[in-house]
Amino acid sequence: MTAQDDRDVRPSVTTGPVKGSTKVHVDVPDPAREGRVLRVPQRRVGLSDGTHIDLYDTSGPYTDPSETIDPHAGLPRLRDEWIQDRAPVNGAVTQAAYARAGVITPEMRFAAAREGVEPEFVRSEVALGRAVIPANRRHPESEPMVIGKNFLVKINANIGNSAVTSSVAEEVEKMVWATRWGADTIMDLSTGRRIHETREWILRNSPVPLGTVPIYQALERVGGDPAALSWEVYRDTVIEQAEQGVDYMTVHAGVLLRYVPLTARRVTGIVSRGGSIMAAWCLAHHRESFLYTHFEELCEILRAYDVTFSLGDGLRPGSVADANDEAQFAELRTLGELTHVARAHDVQVMIEGPGHVPMHKIAENVRLEEELCGEAPFYTLGPLATDIAPGYDHITSAIGAAQIAWHGTAMLCYVTPKEHLGLPDRDDVKTGVITYKLAAHSADLAKGHPKAQERDDALSRARFEFRWQDQFHLALDPETAQSFHDETLPAEPAKTAHFCSMCGPKFCSMRISHDVRRFAEDNGLSTVEAIERGMREKAAEFADGGKRVYLPLAEGEAH
Amino acid sequence: MTAQDDRDVRPSVTTGPVKGSTKVHVDVPDPAREGRVLRVPQRRVGLSDGTHIDLYDTSGPYTDPSETIDPHAGLPRLRDEWIQDRAPVNGAVTQAAYARAGVITPEMRFAAAREGVEPEFVRSEVALGRAVIPANRRHPESEPMVIGKNFLVKINANIGNSAVTSSVAEEVEKMVWATRWGADTIMDLSTGRRIHETREWILRNSPVPLGTVPIYQALERVGGDPAALSWEVYRDTVIEQAEQGVDYMTVHAGVLLRYVPLTARRVTGIVSRGGSIMAAWCLAHHRESFLYTHFEELCEILRAYDVTFSLGDGLRPGSVADANDEAQFAELRTLGELTHVARAHDVQVMIEGPGHVPMHKIAENVRLEEELCGEAPFYTLGPLATDIAPGYDHITSAIGAAQIAWHGTAMLCYVTPKEHLGLPDRDDVKTGVITYKLAAHSADLAKGHPKAQERDDALSRARFEFRWQDQFHLALDPETAQSFHDETLPAEPAKTAHFCSMCGPKFCSMRISHDVRRFAEDNGLSTVEAIERGMREKAAEFADGGKRVYLPLAEGEAH
Repeated sequence: MTAQDDRDVRPSVTTGPVKGSTKVHVDVPDPAREGRVLRVPQRRVGLSDGTHIDLYDTSGPYTDPSETIDPHAGLPRLRDEWIQDRAPVNGAVTQAAYARAGVITPEMRFAAAREGVEPEFVRSEVALGRAVIPANRRHPESEPMVIGKNFLVKINANIGNSAVTSSVAEEVEKMVWATRWGADTIMDLSTGRRIHETREWILRNSPVPLGTVPIYQALERVGGDPAALSWEVYRDTVIEQAEQGVDYMTVHAGVLLRYVPLTARRVTGIVSRGGSIMAAWCLAHHRESFLYTHFEELCEILRAYDVTFSLGDGLRPGSVADANDEAQFAELRTLGELTHVARAHDVQVMIEGPGHVPMHKIAENVRLEEELCGEAPFYTLGPLATDIAPGYDHITSAIGAAQIAWHGTAMLCYVTPKEHLGLPDRDDVKTGVITYKLAAHSADLAKGHPKAQERDDALSRARFEFRWQDQFHLALDPETAQSFHDETLPAEPAKTAHFCSMCGPKFCSMRISHDVRRFAEDNGLSTVEAIERGMREKAAEFADGGKRVYLPLAEGEAH
Repeated sequence: MTAQDDRDVRPSVTTGPVKGSTKVHVDVPDPAREGRVLRVPQRRVGLSDGTHIDLYDTSGPYTDPSETIDPHAGLPRLRDEWIQDRAPVNGAVTQAAYARAGVITPEMRFAAAREGVEPEFVRSEVALGRAVIPANRRHPESEPMVIGKNFLVKINANIGNSAVTSSVAEEVEKMVWATRWGADTIMDLSTGRRIHETREWILRNSPVPLGTVPIYQALERVGGDPAALSWEVYRDTVIEQAEQGVDYMTVHAGVLLRYVPLTARRVTGIVSRGGSIMAAWCLAHHRESFLYTHFEELCEILRAYDVTFSLGDGLRPGSVADANDEAQFAELRTLGELTHVARAHDVQVMIEGPGHVPMHKIAENVRLEEELCGEAPFYTLGPLATDIAPGYDHITSAIGAAQIAWHGTAMLCYVTPKEHLGLPDRDDVKTGVITYKLAAHSADLAKGHPKAQERDDALSRARFEFRWQDQFHLALDPETAQSFHDETLPAEPAKTAHFCSMCGPKFCSMRISHDVRRFAEDNGLSTVEAIERGMREKAAEFADGGKRVYLPLAEGEAH
């Protein structure tokens, strides 16, 4: 970290609790280490009736006022001891290797506590390869989490500078900012100057797993000419990044030479950066991709650090016209093949997915991925359900993301309003994260996750009972919720008013609903009994009269 | 229109073409009237290669620079002659009556031209009650459109002042503004002062059908006390509004006395304003709803003007916990019964739907509605797929809206970012409309509408070929798309640059994709042939070598 970097980073990291929340820790005993506990963070929302709701917390020490935050020192090395304490199994130190050997690691225990499930369940899902815990041994600062279709749906936020814009300090703050609002992992997609330094700052300060696409840095090393890439340059880049602590790496090893012509007649060709770089390399040399031919060596490197593969979809569709085409599914078949190779090396694997897919073609993507890739966690970018709304692609993609997650996608890569148009700024990052949290949460609800429903019900009860502050505090974005409310009814008394600006006092359905309940209570009976008794009397009269006021008529019949 | 109103309205109506578009008219012959044509508006997006795409246009004369706009005079009375020219059939003047008598009205012909289908198809769908053309004889200014599951998915924008906020002028401008961005109908939900005047200004200037909820004005007339309502007050209100030209009316006639207790144990009780008013009335009098007991008289009034019923879901769920419950579906059964009554009177009917519904319960809503209500067009409010994102409910609801429309919902009522928090301002109206246009369009794509796919493909081609201006002009919101682009690369040359700020020139997948194509072309062969020839050679070598670089291994097998 140079003096120049110091200047960049110092001033801008956001700290302090999210409005209405406090940081709490659940102490989980660690049977492997007598008398020691794992301190699992949660975000507690206190409600005005004295109860509270505890939420999954991705924000790390930044939201804990009792922590001293110093980006120069980095975060506490939470996992150092756990990592040092354990010996390899079958020559491997990966979570997959431990899981298959029947060992429940502290990482599994920690992740299980966050999910509200038994540690053994996390172990068995990881052993099957149906879940991954991206946790490089060289990134001990991260708070372990699990990605898999039988857990809460996760979201990733991309950050990173390009040759055109952005500084190191901005990117570190974007990481902190994104995890504050709920990003479960971060990908650093930097392609500009100082890739290594940017990543170092992010890793040492990131409480969540970090992913990268090593081909970007490899390309910088060879001056930006894809044809000049080689296995050796790529391998050295991967080792450098693994040494730094990158938790998962996107590897476009499924872009085979023979698949490239399948993209020639597409509306939008190849839209993955990594995919296009590898396609260009294959064509220039007329040789099979070095990522494919050297895949086992890559497995050995990743295994040594427990870096998780995120097998990239270099041929993903960039428009709804190209969705589910031959190129896309040919690559997916190859990713399935590589998944089994990686698993044989005890390396954890996720599979990346599209992109742009119209709604009726979404389910097929999950079905095929599960079939071909042995249920390895699916990790999709959206998908966008239509191409026609640049500026609103966080929304077009949330429509696809919520559905694909419901069908079984384990992690969603966010899309911001700037998609296709520019690089996201801090506001865009927040909008993207909140949008993807709500998409992921919608999927958790549809999948029947009991913890998910609890938060909806708490917020809806607060809404119905005019507990405005509780409603704001339970919202994904308390600040925006309150500021929108205050635009029309800013006065403090309005926060306790039993109506709001939408309808005014006379037309408030919720107030009338309460009157309905009170009406019954005033008659000395509980609401339901009172009304039901009346109903029975009324129903008796009604039945005498022929049961229906109107009988359905056949169409066109005179009446 | 008083002098006070004049001051309000004059200054604020937005006119002029949408960026990158021009207004054109398609002349459609009207066989019923020798030598006359129907002038059907379209929005033409000219592309830089000299071609163009014509889009469905809801914006009326406001986007036509050749028209003189004067809110005091109102819009031209397009349908006056059509209405005067025709005699009742079977005593009725509704589109449904004509359709069943085999008559293709100019309204059907006009709507068919907008949809790109045969007029006979529109007639037959209206005759079946599977589609409606909301077109009050007293609103001749409106440009006819059709709502039904076999047509493009439509969207409605709610406007209207409340006792707390907003002026008449603001509401007229919101109407013009909403239709500019694609609202197919407008509902005026005003509850404050000057309900009649606000509606008059909107109707005389609205190129799209206008809907209302007459119970709001009826309640104002009785001083805001639901118990003081009566059939007579309600009837007079309906007649007043029908006389003014309201095209469809929400009537909560399915809220029966015996259904009210079904809501008592809900998380959010009754959240429909109209539903809660009627529930309060039923309880106060312990009598069946006058909307239900007088439903046939109501049919007679609506038939005389050709006002379309929008049978309201007064017991819709206001939280995901309450979705698809007994109260909701009991009311839906009653709405089905009333649908058949209305059809027997040749009155057109739509059915309103929820609300808040988690994804896995969405399809059931459409299935039941179609079964119980004879496929009457379904018209839903969202639904929101989760309750936890106030401030982002345009997005939580777009997730539900896109899916319910794909399953068969004919019209989507928009939700703005201010939902649950305050009244939408002009920016919120635009955000809501664009969000719902993209949800509706996603459904059109999933339903396989050929016109829908054409726009996506045109935009994606423009994107792939770096035709930035074409991309902006084809976007749902050209202004926002361009302004986001300009934030990072504002210079004019960047609009023709073959890369953008996301990746910079070296990492541009689209540029590399083009290089891939050029690579083949430089060798004197067409792209696909060149690569395929190479592939065949390579494939031959590859086959000799055993076909696969890696063989899949059983899990856990040594490698």
